[in-house]
Amino acid sequence: MALKDELEKNRQKKKDEKYMKAALKEAKKAYDINEVPIGCVIVRDDKIIGKAYNKRNTDKNVLSHAELLAMQQACKKTGDWRLEDCTMYVTLEPCQMCSGAMVQARLKRVVIGSMNAKAGCAGSVLNILQMEEFNHQVEIEKGVLEEECSQMLSAFFSDLREQKKQF
Amino acid sequence: MALKDELEKNRQKKKDEKYMKAALKEAKKAYDINEVPIGCVIVRDDKIIGKAYNKRNTDKNVLSHAELLAMQQACKKTGDWRLEDCTMYVTLEPCQMCSGAMVQARLKRVVIGSMNAKAGCAGSVLNILQMEEFNHQVEIEKGVLEEECSQMLSAFFSDLREQKKQF
Repeated sequence: MALKDELEKNRQKKKDEKYMKAALKEAKKAYDINEVPIGCVIVRDDKIIGKAYNKRNTDKNVLSHAELLAMQQACKKTGDWRLEDCTMYVTLEPCQMCSGAMVQARLKRVVIGSMNAKAGCAGSVLNILQMEEFNHQVEIEKGVLEEECSQMLSAFFSDLREQKKQF
Repeated sequence: MALKDELEKNRQKKKDEKYMKAALKEAKKAYDINEVPIGCVIVRDDKIIGKAYNKRNTDKNVLSHAELLAMQQACKKTGDWRLEDCTMYVTLEPCQMCSGAMVQARLKRVVIGSMNAKAGCAGSVLNILQMEEFNHQVEIEKGVLEEECSQMLSAFFSDLREQKKQF
């Protein structure tokens, strides 16, 4: 690989890790209110234009996944239902609803922390983000800060099991 | 078919048509504000607990599809992110995002007016609603008041072409 490409790759990697850390901060907020810790930020032109964490139980609303809440914010910020030049950073592989929303919003790129073998729709169960039949495909980057992302989930479910034992 | 089954089938058909008419009324509201006319109602125990129409351009929000707005209302009404005993009536076959949301909400049944060969995810491009890999499958009924539903869409797009000609 040419030196220039190598430098560009490193620069992108650092940027991806920086924003994934911001998504992890969001996930921690979910953890603190006893929600499955999933966090998300949306970035355009090197600025965060949407950030959110899973609040499905708190809001009693099926739409309160981190990704949808962040997309709603980003749409409000840009005044457009299209998020064409945006990158989403999310700590866990998105479900069928959130993946579908990304295609609908024509999101440019999604960066994923840990994968979700049982229910993920960015390649695990299904790859809704890159189906040729749809009018848009989303670029996917996997495994950014994977360990931190999956550790937060493991810790949460381990806590949950402990709590259950006590009752 | 036994007489009892026949009567039950007719009763269900009438009920389905009644609620699809309510969904068509919603679609008409979208038509009147120049949005693609798609309408939706959600029914539980023979009561409408959510109704909405497509407002994606008006709201400048990718989440403002009729189905998601109606689900949000239904969640608010029931105080639960699960819509397990609910039936959705929607004038057009849902997209990947809305189909995904129905599976997430564990919706019981969806009744569809007209199909969407190019983008529908209740059987046309993909059947997200009934994938064995997911933890929930949604019952599907197709073709209820199909003609009225597809005519409303055709009329809308025909108007749109006329408007474009004038500029």
